[in-house]
Amino acid sequence: MSTILVTYYSRTGNTKAMAHHIAAGAREAGAKVDLLPVESVSPETLLPYRAIIIGSPDYYGLMAAPVKKLLDDSVKLHGQLAGKIGGAFSSSANIGGGNETTIISILLAMLVHGMIIPGVAVGDHYGPVAINAPDERAIRQCHNYGKLIANLSAKLT
Amino acid sequence: MSTILVTYYSRTGNTKAMAHHIAAGAREAGAKVDLLPVESVSPETLLPYRAIIIGSPDYYGLMAAPVKKLLDDSVKLHGQLAGKIGGAFSSSANIGGGNETTIISILLAMLVHGMIIPGVAVGDHYGPVAINAPDERAIRQCHNYGKLIANLSAKLT
Amino acid sequence: MSTILVTYYSRTGNTKAMAHHIAAGAREAGAKVDLLPVESVSPETLLPYRAIIIGSPDYYGLMAAPVKKLLDDSVKLHGQLAGKIGGAFSSSANIGGGNETTIISILLAMLVHGMIIPGVAVGDHYGPVAINAPDERAIRQCHNYGKLIANLSAKLT
Amino acid sequence: MSTILVTYYSRTGNTKAMAHHIAAGAREAGAKVDLLPVESVSPETLLPYRAIIIGSPDYYGLMAAPVKKLLDDSVKLHGQLAGKIGGAFSSSANIGGGNETTIISILLAMLVHGMIIPGVAVGDHYGPVAINAPDERAIRQCHNYGKLIANLSAKLT
Repeated sequence: MSTILVTYYSRTGNTKAMAHHIAAGAREAGAKVDLLPVESVSPETLLPYRAIIIGSPDYYGLMAAPVKKLLDDSVKLHGQLAGKIGGAFSSSANIGGGNETTIISILLAMLVHGMIIPGVAVGDHYGPVAINAPDERAIRQCHNYGKLIANLSAKLT
Repeated sequence: MSTILVTYYSRTGNTKAMAHHIAAGAREAGAKVDLLPVESVSPETLLPYRAIIIGSPDYYGLMAAPVKKLLDDSVKLHGQLAGKIGGAFSSSANIGGGNETTIISILLAMLVHGMIIPGVAVGDHYGPVAINAPDERAIRQCHNYGKLIANLSAKLT
Repeated sequence: MSTILVTYYSRTGNTKAMAHHIAAGAREAGAKVDLLPVESVSPETLLPYRAIIIGSPDYYGLMAAPVKKLLDDSVKLHGQLAGKIGGAFSSSANIGGGNETTIISILLAMLVHGMIIPGVAVGDHYGPVAINAPDERAIRQCHNYGKLIANLSAKLT
Repeated sequence: MSTILVTYYSRTGNTKAMAHHIAAGAREAGAKVDLLPVESVSPETLLPYRAIIIGSPDYYGLMAAPVKKLLDDSVKLHGQLAGKIGGAFSSSANIGGGNETTIISILLAMLVHGMIIPGVAVGDHYGPVAINAPDERAIRQCHNYGKLIANLSAKLT
């Protein structure tokens, strides 16, 4: 069974809500999923998972500093995340307000770790995006993204 | 008087409509604006303008190839665009579908040319984004962006 | 056996040389590799491969227009590349001259296609980079990258 | 007289050394320059400067978390940095190791603030990059970048 960690930083609850929908989608596809706020995740927490999905609100077009801090701290186990599957999502106040670049900032850090990143052919291509609280569209994106990551995790063992 | 070129690639008319709204905003702020499809722009066309604003639909998260071709061809006058003001806009079929990264692809090419790029503190931060045909929100973003570029062009002489 | 396409655009021969070293690394890891200039690749050419690696010189911080044109044209088979493995490499005249952003431009387009992108934990993290003709360092990066893609292709069937 | 802040995060001293060379270039062009480690900069510190140049080592392809924290905290004066000139630089252990994307992460945050970003037509196009301790090449890039920012600051009053 594939095990996935969905972790997020959330102040308003929007990114947290997205995390729940992603976890639900992944579970529906058969994965075992843990859901944790980034504040209760240490670098070592990341080690047992086959896939790691990280969400952040859009803070100046990039992941929030507490998420970046986790990634910076993870340097002590650099190399040990290589080959894991990575994914990202973001919530933002505006269309065009930095939601895509927030996701890409997380994906870049994952590539540096040697992680494996799937894109999305239909929908939010880099990862799910919500404008404010996730609406029906965003919820569907989250659900499908969870499934996509779960399916890839099941294949790549 | 500051002179601005707004150029665009448009198949469906959405990016062209955005270009018109940007031009209108820039004119309202006192600029002389030319509006040209990218097919009728050569590298030499770019030389007399103080500011150049380029729009593209989101094709695979980046500017369309015909826009890229203009930028590639402009290498023959590399250095001569340095110090000009640059801006970019995009239209896309989806939120999260690559609209921001399309704009950033244009801005990166402009930075390589030594151009000067203003961000947008309130609204679409990297440049205006429309999801399909520009709605009221997108039109307002375009209008304000035209003004911002015109005002900066008037200051930077 | 995993089959990989390495395709490239090259005017000076530097990107082509990188392509050869990537292909050699992938073959050493047991993959069947085809090596083709982008001019002889159509969207349909891409379909049978399990992995596609695309190289471009750094033209204004992004892939060259002929490479972008192939990707734009590939929209007609959108969805059919989903799940394939993707990789990218670039050659550039300068450190800090846009080599990383050139690679990322290719990777973004691949993510939009729903392709799967591996990062590199040790070395050139987004894909191999050469400054001018590939030196020993760059050749080693290319070789290892070919291996990495081949190994992932063998696992992800 | 134009006033410029050069601020940096540096653990090994490489980014700090770059900051000194940028400051020297800016001073040579007639600017008044303050040089401060990011730890002694608060959001309010940023307000009086006409230009702000931020340097970071490449931590997972992006600015280090302490630099991101300063930018996140600066949200309380959002809008008040609009129209200021921004620049960025990075040091990294490898070519292709994320130096460009580190710079771009800083530039994106500055664009969200509505700051104005100049590119570099000749040299390190997005901002100066050093591989490990700045060598002669990197020092020259830093020097020229300081001058470029100082000259633009003097023009844009």
